[in-house]
Amino acid sequence: MIKAGIIGATGYTGVELMRLLAPRKDVSIEVVTSRELSGTPVADVFPNLRGYLDVVFTEPDTETLAACDVVFYATPHTVAMNTASELLARGVRVIDLSADFRLQDQAVWEAWYKTAHTCPELIDQAVYGLPEVNHESITDAKLIAVPGCYPTAVQLGYLPLLEAGLIDTSSLIADCKSGVSGAGRKAAVGSLLCESSESMKAYAVAGHRHLPEIRQGLTKFSGKDVGLTFIPHLTPMIRGIHATLYASPIAEVSQEQLQALFESRYADSPFVDVLPAGSEPATRNVRGSNRCQIAVHYLPESQKIVVLSVIDNLVKGASGQAVQNMNLMFGLTETAGLDVVALLP
Amino acid sequence: MIKAGIIGATGYTGVELMRLLAPRKDVSIEVVTSRELSGTPVADVFPNLRGYLDVVFTEPDTETLAACDVVFYATPHTVAMNTASELLARGVRVIDLSADFRLQDQAVWEAWYKTAHTCPELIDQAVYGLPEVNHESITDAKLIAVPGCYPTAVQLGYLPLLEAGLIDTSSLIADCKSGVSGAGRKAAVGSLLCESSESMKAYAVAGHRHLPEIRQGLTKFSGKDVGLTFIPHLTPMIRGIHATLYASPIAEVSQEQLQALFESRYADSPFVDVLPAGSEPATRNVRGSNRCQIAVHYLPESQKIVVLSVIDNLVKGASGQAVQNMNLMFGLTETAGLDVVALLP
Amino acid sequence: MIKAGIIGATGYTGVELMRLLAPRKDVSIEVVTSRELSGTPVADVFPNLRGYLDVVFTEPDTETLAACDVVFYATPHTVAMNTASELLARGVRVIDLSADFRLQDQAVWEAWYKTAHTCPELIDQAVYGLPEVNHESITDAKLIAVPGCYPTAVQLGYLPLLEAGLIDTSSLIADCKSGVSGAGRKAAVGSLLCESSESMKAYAVAGHRHLPEIRQGLTKFSGKDVGLTFIPHLTPMIRGIHATLYASPIAEVSQEQLQALFESRYADSPFVDVLPAGSEPATRNVRGSNRCQIAVHYLPESQKIVVLSVIDNLVKGASGQAVQNMNLMFGLTETAGLDVVALLP
Amino acid sequence: MIKAGIIGATGYTGVELMRLLAPRKDVSIEVVTSRELSGTPVADVFPNLRGYLDVVFTEPDTETLAACDVVFYATPHTVAMNTASELLARGVRVIDLSADFRLQDQAVWEAWYKTAHTCPELIDQAVYGLPEVNHESITDAKLIAVPGCYPTAVQLGYLPLLEAGLIDTSSLIADCKSGVSGAGRKAAVGSLLCESSESMKAYAVAGHRHLPEIRQGLTKFSGKDVGLTFIPHLTPMIRGIHATLYASPIAEVSQEQLQALFESRYADSPFVDVLPAGSEPATRNVRGSNRCQIAVHYLPESQKIVVLSVIDNLVKGASGQAVQNMNLMFGLTETAGLDVVALLP
Repeated sequence: MIKAGIIGATGYTGVELMRLLAPRKDVSIEVVTSRELSGTPVADVFPNLRGYLDVVFTEPDTETLAACDVVFYATPHTVAMNTASELLARGVRVIDLSADFRLQDQAVWEAWYKTAHTCPELIDQAVYGLPEVNHESITDAKLIAVPGCYPTAVQLGYLPLLEAGLIDTSSLIADCKSGVSGAGRKAAVGSLLCESSESMKAYAVAGHRHLPEIRQGLTKFSGKDVGLTFIPHLTPMIRGIHATLYASPIAEVSQEQLQALFESRYADSPFVDVLPAGSEPATRNVRGSNRCQIAVHYLPESQKIVVLSVIDNLVKGASGQAVQNMNLMFGLTETAGLDVVALLP
Repeated sequence: MIKAGIIGATGYTGVELMRLLAPRKDVSIEVVTSRELSGTPVADVFPNLRGYLDVVFTEPDTETLAACDVVFYATPHTVAMNTASELLARGVRVIDLSADFRLQDQAVWEAWYKTAHTCPELIDQAVYGLPEVNHESITDAKLIAVPGCYPTAVQLGYLPLLEAGLIDTSSLIADCKSGVSGAGRKAAVGSLLCESSESMKAYAVAGHRHLPEIRQGLTKFSGKDVGLTFIPHLTPMIRGIHATLYASPIAEVSQEQLQALFESRYADSPFVDVLPAGSEPATRNVRGSNRCQIAVHYLPESQKIVVLSVIDNLVKGASGQAVQNMNLMFGLTETAGLDVVALLP
Repeated sequence: MIKAGIIGATGYTGVELMRLLAPRKDVSIEVVTSRELSGTPVADVFPNLRGYLDVVFTEPDTETLAACDVVFYATPHTVAMNTASELLARGVRVIDLSADFRLQDQAVWEAWYKTAHTCPELIDQAVYGLPEVNHESITDAKLIAVPGCYPTAVQLGYLPLLEAGLIDTSSLIADCKSGVSGAGRKAAVGSLLCESSESMKAYAVAGHRHLPEIRQGLTKFSGKDVGLTFIPHLTPMIRGIHATLYASPIAEVSQEQLQALFESRYADSPFVDVLPAGSEPATRNVRGSNRCQIAVHYLPESQKIVVLSVIDNLVKGASGQAVQNMNLMFGLTETAGLDVVALLP
Repeated sequence: MIKAGIIGATGYTGVELMRLLAPRKDVSIEVVTSRELSGTPVADVFPNLRGYLDVVFTEPDTETLAACDVVFYATPHTVAMNTASELLARGVRVIDLSADFRLQDQAVWEAWYKTAHTCPELIDQAVYGLPEVNHESITDAKLIAVPGCYPTAVQLGYLPLLEAGLIDTSSLIADCKSGVSGAGRKAAVGSLLCESSESMKAYAVAGHRHLPEIRQGLTKFSGKDVGLTFIPHLTPMIRGIHATLYASPIAEVSQEQLQALFESRYADSPFVDVLPAGSEPATRNVRGSNRCQIAVHYLPESQKIVVLSVIDNLVKGASGQAVQNMNLMFGLTETAGLDVVALLP
């Protein structure tokens, strides 16, 4: 039985972790922390968990957390970098859903997050938890940086093309659409139903914090510098990311070749589902599941490759991917507890 | 291994049955029929099932269906009454999600459904599949009439009050709100996003087909004639029914007494979750789950009892309840395959 | 040219007032106040007003406001009661969209709003701004208490029945459904898209502040004490209130009689549209308009009268009604600036 | 008084035309046709029009239509090309909201619409009704081809850049997001609330019928061949198009220069609102209005120009633009009847 703790579990990635872990027989959620809700039963805040999780929010406390086998940080950035080292020192595996250890270049991190990194010594040690790329190193990791939601959808979409060296890396365009849960469960006017439903808008056009993370990954896949334009859009729905990825081939390609490339690259990836040629994936087909569904299109007239990649931002884009990492770290089946059919409609 | 067939599986109750059954190790979906999509892989129509269900829609065929242990009718009314008897004769258990066998009075059925009942001899044999009431008889049943969605939410809400004889039965009011999936997956202008989102309306005010079904149940629970006003409302969401039930007590009651009554009545019902006094259930807390969450309120000033009862119309209101019935019929744990945490947010 | 000021214009009733007033040739919006956004152009916050309103938010200031002919309070309760008397003393007409002067019994107000009323001397002077009832007195009023959104929908629905003495007033039930904009534009977790979309729930079951306001009105219409159960529900849409009103006739009635009663009662009310017998109004049909659409149904089997009444909570339920009052106070056509077709779809 | 007729008025562009025209004092809607609803009052189908339009749907009839000054075709393609010439011959101005006369190359039209064009002689005579480009010729036109919704948003976004010769035309990318009303009011499974809400998907990736229309316009603006990738996405909302347009400058540019270019180009266009530098337009800010709000961004790091262009697809993308054309054709103020503040929230 794996003893798990969750820090900062009042947000959407927190409740999603609990949804995925609470019914498992091989995992026990021992500690769930929240400074503001300390003393409140978790199921009072999230009534979907009634009967599944009989735990009370507590103040974060190192002693209690150190008794866990694994601790998830479902916190905003800057929390994990201040306390993770202590837990690691006491032998706890740490899975950080925040951005603290995602960027390997400390200066870049500090520029984008506008604060000093307080734990640079762990940056190298952290494994970037994208199992489709780092399967081996995750198995041995003590500290996982779970990828961001946009970075997951975008990297999985470009990965086969970049590894195969098929596209011009100087001018990639990732036009991404996210449901509102990506903004978290904090009270903010922009996330009100009356502000964000029945509307579509781009945001962070001048630069979103996921941009350096995506660029870091794409650069690694391709082995060269990458020119990337990344425009996120707030979409009037709860869950889901749809990444529309544009690229220009550097030599002649065909739909068949691209299709075969994607199918082969992801043949051993249980959570990447390459759709048949001509498909147009919809976010609803992965709602609540840990899947990334991908379709690759070649448009001969404009000579563009267009990849469509969809995930549930709270599952494959956050908590499901965190659990997938945990499974690998603890030698369990990669799909344990994640073999869930998406909720449709 | 239970061999299952599903007739008419292109609708929402069909895909929901497949979502619930496909991952199970003790059930195998053998036959999935659809006249219009015969020959098409199920996962082409419902991409959430890719990799979970490798079955092709076929024309309904008695031979193939008769090889199943259980057959679900996820069809409009009048289909089951024309073919179920043959399957029953060949030893197949039948679980009908349609209305064909829900009403025990043939004349009432014919008046509301405006057609002759072609299989009246099975009406008596059919067990009304509300496990919180008919647990025993379901266990022995060959033919189950799965309750309608509104009837499930309303009956579970009034049941303790009526059994205990606490309320005036002459003037019950059930104001019910349903998500649009209750209208099914057929192309109809009224169910378009542009017609049904961002709007609220009552419908079938003059009389909805679930009215006689609800009245039949309430009469049975109370042992007397019941005066019922039932107004359904189309609500701009996909899933969920919220029943707001009004009743006048016939003697002095207290909140504590009502709370204790509901908790005690449902103590052994794994899918009815009586919320603490003062709660206001939300449909999202049961989305995708087989639960009915109920709160009972006593309003001393107006001397009214108000029961709030929420279900997912496609799960506890249809396919989940069908599976719960199957579990009981086949001697399995009542909760097998249904122990799923609701998807929140 | 009427010079108008708006206090607290950063909320939804504020922007709605500006939408309705900005294009008018006979009204000029001179002052728009907001403590927190002082100095910001209104059109920066509400880009729909770009080009229509070239005004900057300012700190509320009595001198500036006193130069207006009319001042609207689009504020939470307790603001108007602290400053309206000064404006009135300087000859400004005041239209208060908040609750400060709606209840004529100071003790009841203080009990529900849990604070002392600081301006009880104005309570009597305030005219309750429901033009379908108080048309005459509004014309002469200096201070208008604009009715709440639920009270508007409910009172207009019950009014003809109560005036005609047709129903049992001891046991009225108003089951009401409101869009999320009723909760205002403040950052609150419960109003987030991820919390309130795709869900339905009752709230304030133990007692909503609009209950005493509704009861006050119904009592006045009927001349007797009224027993009222009022249950509001949060509905996943931006705008709209749907009131479903239940009543028992005290003598024999017919559909024809009820239909004639409603049509006759509202024959001279330009904003109450009695639909043909058998209709089921939808909130979308009044979105953005100042109309209340009403249908009255008699259900002979259960001997209940059911009235369905829909409004746009921000228009007829707030800012449109405020403008309707202003029109009457200034001797303008009642419908000036309000003759707008609802936005459908 | 302009006498207007509307052919095929049961769809969303039809009801939107009626919303815009019905309240006008200078236009009278004389004929509204629908084959299937002939005999039904328009206001029975669209209750928002009750009291504004007292007209009954009739069978299309040339005599009646010929008595109008202007006839709008709110029909699917192939209707106008079969009957418009007769109306034109009788002196009626024709404004076609369908695609029949949008493409100037008959062969291209026939290839995309997969049928023979039955009225090629009118193609040359038709004026493409984008007033920001063809203001003069619209004034004199007898036959207007109202641009498609996507083409309006995309062309207005690229227009200043192409006219100024600032960008590489070989590799334009238009990633567009449309509300579901773009699919029309016909009963189709894909447009059901349960299929299209809470989801995001691309469609027509292999080629959408608006592609040749957009390419024709962009080619004309730039005077060269244009390489265009156009990917439309179905977005879970009723109204709105958000076009995200990517381009590479062919020489050094600055944000200031681009901002000045756009502001200057649209200085005389009452319905194109260039937002301040750094803005991120939202579709809700133009809901119900005839405006196109545009922001231009220069991203120095990736050296890309990104234009964000939003419209209401039913107004500036269809019926509002049609009315704007009518105003110009009849010598009225361009903004007559269109000076409406968007409905927010």
